[in-house]
Amino acid sequence: MAETVKATNITWHQGDIVRANREAANGHRATVIWFTGLSASGKSTLAHAVENTLFERGCRTYVLDGDNIRHGLNKDLGFSPEDREENIRRIGEVAKLFVDAGVIAMTAFISPYRADRAKARSLCPDSFTEIYVKCDLAVCEERDPKGLYKKARAGQVKEFTGISAPYEEPESPELVIDTSHESLEESAAKVIAYLEAKGIVPAA
Amino acid sequence: MAETVKATNITWHQGDIVRANREAANGHRATVIWFTGLSASGKSTLAHAVENTLFERGCRTYVLDGDNIRHGLNKDLGFSPEDREENIRRIGEVAKLFVDAGVIAMTAFISPYRADRAKARSLCPDSFTEIYVKCDLAVCEERDPKGLYKKARAGQVKEFTGISAPYEEPESPELVIDTSHESLEESAAKVIAYLEAKGIVPAA
Repeated sequence: MAETVKATNITWHQGDIVRANREAANGHRATVIWFTGLSASGKSTLAHAVENTLFERGCRTYVLDGDNIRHGLNKDLGFSPEDREENIRRIGEVAKLFVDAGVIAMTAFISPYRADRAKARSLCPDSFTEIYVKCDLAVCEERDPKGLYKKARAGQVKEFTGISAPYEEPESPELVIDTSHESLEESAAKVIAYLEAKGIVPAA
Repeated sequence: MAETVKATNITWHQGDIVRANREAANGHRATVIWFTGLSASGKSTLAHAVENTLFERGCRTYVLDGDNIRHGLNKDLGFSPEDREENIRRIGEVAKLFVDAGVIAMTAFISPYRADRAKARSLCPDSFTEIYVKCDLAVCEERDPKGLYKKARAGQVKEFTGISAPYEEPESPELVIDTSHESLEESAAKVIAYLEAKGIVPAA
């Protein structure tokens, strides 16, 4: 009986659904789109704008951001360098799972350290688009939608990127989006155009 | 300018794609299917068999199991009670993300503790199907595809569920599948029938 069971296992495992099957069914490639930049630079807003367009076109997408990660999977982590590293490590691993599931996985986290972003890229080396959401610190601080810059300046929030913790700019991101000088619509269109040019999604 | 940006954010966030949009596009509900049972009981094999059928029907699915979790997201965790708890906590959180993404997320882990499974359920209380993959220990030990039971009996693998660590049987799972006495085809058909009966996937 053990023999029979093992043989059955093998048959089924040969037939397992893999990423290529899912991509074929979805009509687009799976990839990680890794948005990085200062707090309030517009990463999450841009990711959701891109998602809206892709969803209208029938693409499978998902945005990982502070809202669904920091209160869930990574609620045990703080903002020390070690915890930031583990935060980004886990996000990279989850993004990899979504890519394996055939999804365009967008991540919207400050992810201030080059080494951590490089590790995330190494998990999906052929399917990783790093987008630097560039925005002047002064503009971010003026936006300050959650009042975090104000608190950081007052010393009430420790290790705040751009104020009391470093942000390491990407050296060779696939794309730079300057949200200080571009509208959200322009920014989203640039990302979509990039995905089309790379054959990740079909041209509209 | 800060005002304009904030207003734009709000507009876009109102238009964000949520789970209900994805379920409508997919033509089925999203849910967690949580397989629990001894090592070699057939959890992962059953999950993949269910996935094969659902994929053929055009459903969006993903299987989380040892192959894609233990070497990735949870590679920092061992098999102590604390690490097992954190292992299951993270898997529950990732399954929740997949459900939010509109996917039928199947998890195939021993998940031996009732309390940990209850916590995973509490993350998706309305979308959680616990399936006890029941199999006699003697049958699991006879199958022993990875030779783990042999090693556990020899004391070479510590804290092995069923041998040197406890397995807490589910008290009220949605479904019990007895893989000691049912074929894989029968088992998979039962799971599909359950999903159809609950309106999670359309009847074929």
